[in-house]
Amino acid sequence: MESFARLTSVLRRLPGIGRRSAERIATKLVRDSEGVLADLLRALEEVRRNLCCCVRCGSITSVKENPCSLCTSAERDGKTLCVVEDPNDIQIIERSGGFRGRYHALMGKLSPMRGEGLEDLRLGSLLKRIENEKFEEVILAFSTDVEGDATASYIVEALKDRRIKVTRLAFGLPVGSGLIYADPETVAKAIKGRQDA
Amino acid sequence: MESFARLTSVLRRLPGIGRRSAERIATKLVRDSEGVLADLLRALEEVRRNLCCCVRCGSITSVKENPCSLCTSAERDGKTLCVVEDPNDIQIIERSGGFRGRYHALMGKLSPMRGEGLEDLRLGSLLKRIENEKFEEVILAFSTDVEGDATASYIVEALKDRRIKVTRLAFGLPVGSGLIYADPETVAKAIKGRQDA
Repeated sequence: MESFARLTSVLRRLPGIGRRSAERIATKLVRDSEGVLADLLRALEEVRRNLCCCVRCGSITSVKENPCSLCTSAERDGKTLCVVEDPNDIQIIERSGGFRGRYHALMGKLSPMRGEGLEDLRLGSLLKRIENEKFEEVILAFSTDVEGDATASYIVEALKDRRIKVTRLAFGLPVGSGLIYADPETVAKAIKGRQDA
Repeated sequence: MESFARLTSVLRRLPGIGRRSAERIATKLVRDSEGVLADLLRALEEVRRNLCCCVRCGSITSVKENPCSLCTSAERDGKTLCVVEDPNDIQIIERSGGFRGRYHALMGKLSPMRGEGLEDLRLGSLLKRIENEKFEEVILAFSTDVEGDATASYIVEALKDRRIKVTRLAFGLPVGSGLIYADPETVAKAIKGRQDA
């Protein structure tokens, strides 16, 4: 049964998996109905062989295409850089179709409370890219929490002497939602950021 | 990137993992900070080599100890059988210390809506065990939802001509909770099942 405990403890290191879900998942894998254990092993081996994070922007890419196509494609707007916390955020923004520039994933956000500071983030490489590539605007696409705000403030401060526009994503109501579902702070920010109709 | 899609689709077959969490987990595994991908591969290989479900009760056991110690230990009460949905439920009941009898995991519950019927469950082997082993009581420890109720009804019906006591777990307030947190149906069942103080 130590094998079971070892598996649950690895599973708990994955995002969003607590003790109970780790046990349910491990149980499912031991039962291995529909061959899910073998399929998972195969998929993980394949990922280990084929994928990595882009050396430049941090997005997920093939080991054969590094820097990734988002960084190298001439069809993308090389004047705008979107800074995100996580490579997964890049996929989310790409799916939205709302952005056609370059990306930079920090691999986290400033979180002094949890002991995650500057040294854990790809901030040095961000500043170097801003120096070397010809960006005219940096969009900070962080989560709207204390840590996202702290990370944004840090970057705004670091860039304040350069001639570069720094923006953040708009706050407001989610599409398809209404006032009744929004918390007061979101409502206040949606009013402050109101736009011509 | 097909490797990424294949990994997320396997992850989504695990309990409690939707599209978003599958992507977050897969991203974490590609980044492979702190070697979590290698550790997961190692833990899964180990589980595949060492663990299986007990041929008798369905609980998770070592391949070297099958039937499992819960089934074979002479120190356990051989007169009471606790029937559960999932092997994981056996671990949860064992941790509670509230039961010292034998177990039988059905590997699911009756769910005609999702097309999961009798043939998917270990019901035949349950009835055979009840016939062959000398149980005096069968405790049905299913979830308190429509499917759990349907599964319980089916078993009660199948056993109705035998001289065996069939019970279900008590409904009521969770320990450490209060009326204010309970839904009306739980309150009603807690009143109906009230006990001498």
